[in-house]
Amino acid sequence: MSAGVPQRPPGCSSQTLQKSFPILRWLPHYSLPCLKLDLIAGLTVGLTVVPQALAYADVAGLPAQYGLYSSFMGCFVYCLMGTSKDVTLGPTAIMSLLVSFYTFGDPALAVLMTFLSGCIQLAMGLLCLGFLLDFISYPVIKGFTLAVSLTIGFSQIKNLLGLHNIPQQFFLQVYDTFRRIGETRAGDATLGVLSIVALLVLKLMKSHIPKIHRGMPLWLRLCYLTVWLTATARNALLVIAAGLIAYSFQVMGSQPFILTGKTAEGLPPFRLPPFSNGTVPFMSMVQDMGAGLGVIPFMGLLESIAIAKAFASQNNYRIDPNQELLALGITNILGSFVSSYPVTGSFGRTAVNAQTGVCTPAGGLFTGALVLLSLAYLTPLFFYIPKATLAAVIICAVAPMFDTKVFRTLWKVKKLDLLPFFATFLLCFWEVQYGILAGVIVSGILLLYPVARPQIKVYDQENLVVQPLSGLSFPATEYIRDRLYEVALAASPPRSVVLDCSHLNTIDYTVVAGLNDLQQEFQRKGVSLSFSDLQDPVFRVLLAAKFTGPGSFRIQGEARGKEDQQEADSSSHSSLLPAVNNSPEILAE
Amino acid sequence: MSAGVPQRPPGCSSQTLQKSFPILRWLPHYSLPCLKLDLIAGLTVGLTVVPQALAYADVAGLPAQYGLYSSFMGCFVYCLMGTSKDVTLGPTAIMSLLVSFYTFGDPALAVLMTFLSGCIQLAMGLLCLGFLLDFISYPVIKGFTLAVSLTIGFSQIKNLLGLHNIPQQFFLQVYDTFRRIGETRAGDATLGVLSIVALLVLKLMKSHIPKIHRGMPLWLRLCYLTVWLTATARNALLVIAAGLIAYSFQVMGSQPFILTGKTAEGLPPFRLPPFSNGTVPFMSMVQDMGAGLGVIPFMGLLESIAIAKAFASQNNYRIDPNQELLALGITNILGSFVSSYPVTGSFGRTAVNAQTGVCTPAGGLFTGALVLLSLAYLTPLFFYIPKATLAAVIICAVAPMFDTKVFRTLWKVKKLDLLPFFATFLLCFWEVQYGILAGVIVSGILLLYPVARPQIKVYDQENLVVQPLSGLSFPATEYIRDRLYEVALAASPPRSVVLDCSHLNTIDYTVVAGLNDLQQEFQRKGVSLSFSDLQDPVFRVLLAAKFTGPGSFRIQGEARGKEDQQEADSSSHSSLLPAVNNSPEILAE
Repeated sequence: MSAGVPQRPPGCSSQTLQKSFPILRWLPHYSLPCLKLDLIAGLTVGLTVVPQALAYADVAGLPAQYGLYSSFMGCFVYCLMGTSKDVTLGPTAIMSLLVSFYTFGDPALAVLMTFLSGCIQLAMGLLCLGFLLDFISYPVIKGFTLAVSLTIGFSQIKNLLGLHNIPQQFFLQVYDTFRRIGETRAGDATLGVLSIVALLVLKLMKSHIPKIHRGMPLWLRLCYLTVWLTATARNALLVIAAGLIAYSFQVMGSQPFILTGKTAEGLPPFRLPPFSNGTVPFMSMVQDMGAGLGVIPFMGLLESIAIAKAFASQNNYRIDPNQELLALGITNILGSFVSSYPVTGSFGRTAVNAQTGVCTPAGGLFTGALVLLSLAYLTPLFFYIPKATLAAVIICAVAPMFDTKVFRTLWKVKKLDLLPFFATFLLCFWEVQYGILAGVIVSGILLLYPVARPQIKVYDQENLVVQPLSGLSFPATEYIRDRLYEVALAASPPRSVVLDCSHLNTIDYTVVAGLNDLQQEFQRKGVSLSFSDLQDPVFRVLLAAKFTGPGSFRIQGEARGKEDQQEADSSSHSSLLPAVNNSPEILAE
Repeated sequence: MSAGVPQRPPGCSSQTLQKSFPILRWLPHYSLPCLKLDLIAGLTVGLTVVPQALAYADVAGLPAQYGLYSSFMGCFVYCLMGTSKDVTLGPTAIMSLLVSFYTFGDPALAVLMTFLSGCIQLAMGLLCLGFLLDFISYPVIKGFTLAVSLTIGFSQIKNLLGLHNIPQQFFLQVYDTFRRIGETRAGDATLGVLSIVALLVLKLMKSHIPKIHRGMPLWLRLCYLTVWLTATARNALLVIAAGLIAYSFQVMGSQPFILTGKTAEGLPPFRLPPFSNGTVPFMSMVQDMGAGLGVIPFMGLLESIAIAKAFASQNNYRIDPNQELLALGITNILGSFVSSYPVTGSFGRTAVNAQTGVCTPAGGLFTGALVLLSLAYLTPLFFYIPKATLAAVIICAVAPMFDTKVFRTLWKVKKLDLLPFFATFLLCFWEVQYGILAGVIVSGILLLYPVARPQIKVYDQENLVVQPLSGLSFPATEYIRDRLYEVALAASPPRSVVLDCSHLNTIDYTVVAGLNDLQQEFQRKGVSLSFSDLQDPVFRVLLAAKFTGPGSFRIQGEARGKEDQQEADSSSHSSLLPAVNNSPEILAE
């Protein structure tokens, strides 16, 4: 098909093993400087994931410990199987929201969902179905992200203000939150707003630190380093600070904040995912999950691969999307044994990982270890973390996703792409799967419309020359027949038509049959239909169809007197074919 | 979009009326010679439809009179609303089989199906959804027709041989028919085979009559005319003859044939279609019909419009597909008031109509009148029609549909089109809707595959020139990125790439965003990605996306040193754009 593309040699067993476990490629060259960088990056990510995990569990509608249960398996599996040094798998805001949609705050359902999602992702990886992601267009992804970030961000307002019993559904939530804004608890609101301000200031400081170099005085370098560390671990520091404040109040006997409260202590048990839920049998659990069984694995893939590709491109390496699928699938399957809810690649933490200078996926080991240590020794302390602070962590995490620039960009670049964007965006507030489905359908229609109604240019020369500006496939058959007929018979007397096929590189039998019918219709009217500028594959198909009538094919370029433009790959096709009647029959009864 | 195409003037009320009731166009010019021709054609079609209707009712699993109930409404409605002089609406073999699939021999369900199908067809006509038929490709139609003709033909073997209690399902039917072939009744088998032979001989004679002209002796002309009349009315004559034989045996007190038996006498009552069936409520009836509510209206449209187009093309006139939809929808709606089952255009009878020289749709009035007369006065005589003869009528009607040439044609012309053909053909034996669905899906994949994986040519010149041979849409984004990346980096050192856009006439934002990312990736590798041969719309989109990097656009034709090929519609685009970073963001978390 092309020149100069290297072909991968047929796999031998050692290469296959290296492909399945990319760790075998980088481990032999692993070095001490790498270890140092990975250790720093891994711990930094760990300091981010622990508070985020506690917060996201609330978005998912699950007890806080489930966030941590979901945060370590991905680190270990990805270290063995991942093809990107930067990606970190774990709970994310979007996944958490989807989990809350489809599992209704039932941990058993969430864990079973993890197992089934993992199986589906693994199967997709093994069947190389990753290409299905190609059919999700950019406007759909953007519409989905915007809607979901708004939903997640708003869902935390109630925690920020200390409101109770706000419904889950987005529109009801907005209505109820505003209606009951008077019930705001002063303590929670103050802490929440202060937490957001603190996070924003730290983030801003981080982006304004100049690059540290050896020419600087030591005290300045130390100062910058401290700021950098504080800013990078800001989530963890904030949660610790807020926890200490809440603990102090508790000790003093008054508590102005709503706290996380009692969470299960210690590591999660290692056991089979729950294939039945008390009296609820397996099939009925699966039915409860409904469309989630499609949406969750698919969005997991999409998020994970999009992130991997983005960072691979930024840091100059390539990933293997199918291997990423396998890694994600296995993470979820194994995760379901330690009560994880479905995980995927996290954009925020992957960015932290990359910025801290991670060297190999080994960084994940330290992240995972930190999560396990927190679970083993810190769970009793989680009791004191105020919910308003966790809400602030989430709001600051999803805020960058609410990027409205995309609207202006689409308006400026391609207005038609606003249709799938808005279809997805608006319907996602109703139900996420309808939003994605609508976006895919609308972009499918935009994709198929030009296939069914190709643009046509008509040149009036010796004969009329009709040139489709894109290919012709079966949905265009009737349209092109009607247009050619109209064009030929608009003149009086009717005029012969030349179909300029320069943009056709393939043709199917339905089109051939339609053109054959039309050619006979033209003959009855005393005019001709012929073809010019045929590329080889199209010419061969028309030849095989034994096109009737003399002079069906014109010498290439004759039609519009232009030069042979495809000398490299197609020669000029001019022939007189015997008038064999091979008219295709239609549905007969 | 094009030159020289006449535009229809904006509709005024008289024109709208003429569009809805095409009879207003031809009736003012109606003449006596036309009337004579229409009378002959109408009666000839009537002599065909009466025996066929009785036979098809058996295929549909309904009592014989329902065939006739279904045969007259279409004639009257089409006379008012049809845009083709040849088409005759009524019961057909395919529709009858579909009705038997989805209504299980329950007349109430069949009549309700008629009403609902009519409503769906009418709605599709009013919403101009006829274009959906474009997505049924020729191989799918052919696969469906072949499978259905085989199913129908085989379903009559049991009647031909006089076997009882043969199951409906195709595979069981084949198995049981062969297993119990020993139970064949001599009388039925003899009559059936003789009937088939008689029909074949008459058909063969008809096709060998020379054209009658005034130079012939009168006796020869009369002789030829008699043969022509006998051959044309062969179904009716055969049924009458067989009925007489059966009556004679009955009078003599022995009956070697299985007879049609008692049928309801007289005209059908005019009443609302049954919106409930005894104790079965409406919704449960609708559920029983299931996928039939999609398949029956859709196949009805497809059959009817395919036939109208075929005869319009053959006889040099144009039809209005949307008006045909409306005519069919109203026929079915009104038909349901006279206990009709769903009808559509009949290929066989339309051919008879055309060959007999019908002049206007008024021929249908005589057909309809003949059917009504038969219902009013002949129903008691239907008792004596042997089932084996009706089976012969059906087998001879569907035999021409079993056209296996299509297999050879597809093999020769376009082997890939055999995939949707076989998918449809094979699955239609299981369930018709799965067959059609599979065909549509397979042809959809064949349609989308080149959209997602466009063919690419690489030319090695000063720079590497990469030319996609068809358009680029969002599903191709990742693929084209990967290919460009591979091509550029296969060489050492990496080489700059020019993307030749001569076959692109449109581009969407996903592709633009992907190329933008790639351009930045290339910049980091120290090579460039530029564009050549841009058509105007594509150029405008790239310009709006503020493509970064100097020299993004090449003078048209520079890349491969060829002449400007699109002087008429696109000028050469060469520009140096400011390096504005407008890189699109991906899903962020």
